[in-house]
Amino acid sequence: MRRVGILGGMGPQATLLLMQKILDAVPATDDADHIPLLVDQNPQVPSRIRHLIEGTGDNPDPVLARMAKGLVAAGAEALAMPCNTAHHYAPSIRSAVQVPFIDMVDLSTRHAAALAGLDGRVGILASPAVRKIGLFDAPLARFGVMALYPQDEAAMLAAIRRIKAAGPEAGTAAALRLQSDALLQRGASVQMIACTEFSLLADATAPGVTAFDTLDVLVGAITAFATGTAASQVRLQRDLELNKADQTKQQRRQS
Amino acid sequence: MRRVGILGGMGPQATLLLMQKILDAVPATDDADHIPLLVDQNPQVPSRIRHLIEGTGDNPDPVLARMAKGLVAAGAEALAMPCNTAHHYAPSIRSAVQVPFIDMVDLSTRHAAALAGLDGRVGILASPAVRKIGLFDAPLARFGVMALYPQDEAAMLAAIRRIKAAGPEAGTAAALRLQSDALLQRGASVQMIACTEFSLLADATAPGVTAFDTLDVLVGAITAFATGTAASQVRLQRDLELNKADQTKQQRRQS
Repeated sequence: MRRVGILGGMGPQATLLLMQKILDAVPATDDADHIPLLVDQNPQVPSRIRHLIEGTGDNPDPVLARMAKGLVAAGAEALAMPCNTAHHYAPSIRSAVQVPFIDMVDLSTRHAAALAGLDGRVGILASPAVRKIGLFDAPLARFGVMALYPQDEAAMLAAIRRIKAAGPEAGTAAALRLQSDALLQRGASVQMIACTEFSLLADATAPGVTAFDTLDVLVGAITAFATGTAASQVRLQRDLELNKADQTKQQRRQS
Repeated sequence: MRRVGILGGMGPQATLLLMQKILDAVPATDDADHIPLLVDQNPQVPSRIRHLIEGTGDNPDPVLARMAKGLVAAGAEALAMPCNTAHHYAPSIRSAVQVPFIDMVDLSTRHAAALAGLDGRVGILASPAVRKIGLFDAPLARFGVMALYPQDEAAMLAAIRRIKAAGPEAGTAAALRLQSDALLQRGASVQMIACTEFSLLADATAPGVTAFDTLDVLVGAITAFATGTAASQVRLQRDLELNKADQTKQQRRQS
């Protein structure tokens, strides 16, 4: 089995949820059946919200690149990151290492597009930072799909902060369900949970919505890579080409 | 805050429980308040039960030494291991690195001795391997305390295997409670849960027992080290002296 390195701590509870889901995904009769992971649980990565929304915090780029290099030096054969917003910095991670980055945003885009069909709309339950940086817009547009975001961004941000401070609570789930229902009224019958804080909540989407969790998509890809299924071999090649493209861009910027 | 490296995967669920307990131990208002960890979740460490009880498996020593070195190379400033039985191999870990090993067995011995008092008896709910290798006997004897073990070792081993395969279940807890009650009848009113698989079960000890979980003792020590409280500074010095002693012994064996 191949070891996957996890850029974690964003937040730390979401990293634990990913690890638990990976454990649960493996039918095991003893320890050795489980997937080996190297986890950098680093809650001190500069705040993505402060950097992208408030414009006051440090850029997480160098910290994430350093974490990626450290995980690979310690033996990780691929990397993954259970935080959608932080995928804004994925080019820095890719250009820092020679192993594939299992990209939760790319995988989730494909999954959402398959569910929504051409000319569909996909609702995105995420941090307002995700809308601001257009994390899913261009990738979904390539499949002819439009991204729709909750209009009450203050409510979304408050929900994330409440989960980071107090854990998942029924009141927070109810607040999120309101936003999910509003997205459904605007035509997004397919919705994705694209914030690993929201992954901690059960029933965060409204009745009538076809919902999936980007974290579950990542769990499937990590399991496939670690156990070496055929589909993951194809992805591996494409992921390595992406690393190379990001490295070339980075070199051009530096020269 | 200082980063602690975790030699994990023995089993993987117990490692997650340690991480969750560390998260829960920190009063946090945002990610950055939490303790940074580097976790080698390695379920492929050779089975301690096969090596110590059945005498058929590989020696985990070299794998654990390699994991310890890797974690320190990646930036861990101390190491800890959420598996009591594996502490049999602690000398190899200590002699492989220059950072302190936060020793769950040593810390738990002191805690048990303080609860039991002189001439006390401490019941040890653990893998039969723990009795066989005398993990706690000599350390407790130094405090004048006698270690008592469950007499039905097959039941204990079956419980561990059931938890590793199926997770914590009420039936397994009931089986363990029977053993705990038998220990109480033999005079062990203080008992310690000294198997991180059993830490996954609620109510694993009999009514009337003063019980504690060795994993909770480890959580306290990791938190103290990471946040740099005064008590942990004193331990740090002692732990480094232990490393040195183990390195000297190892050198003597090799020369």
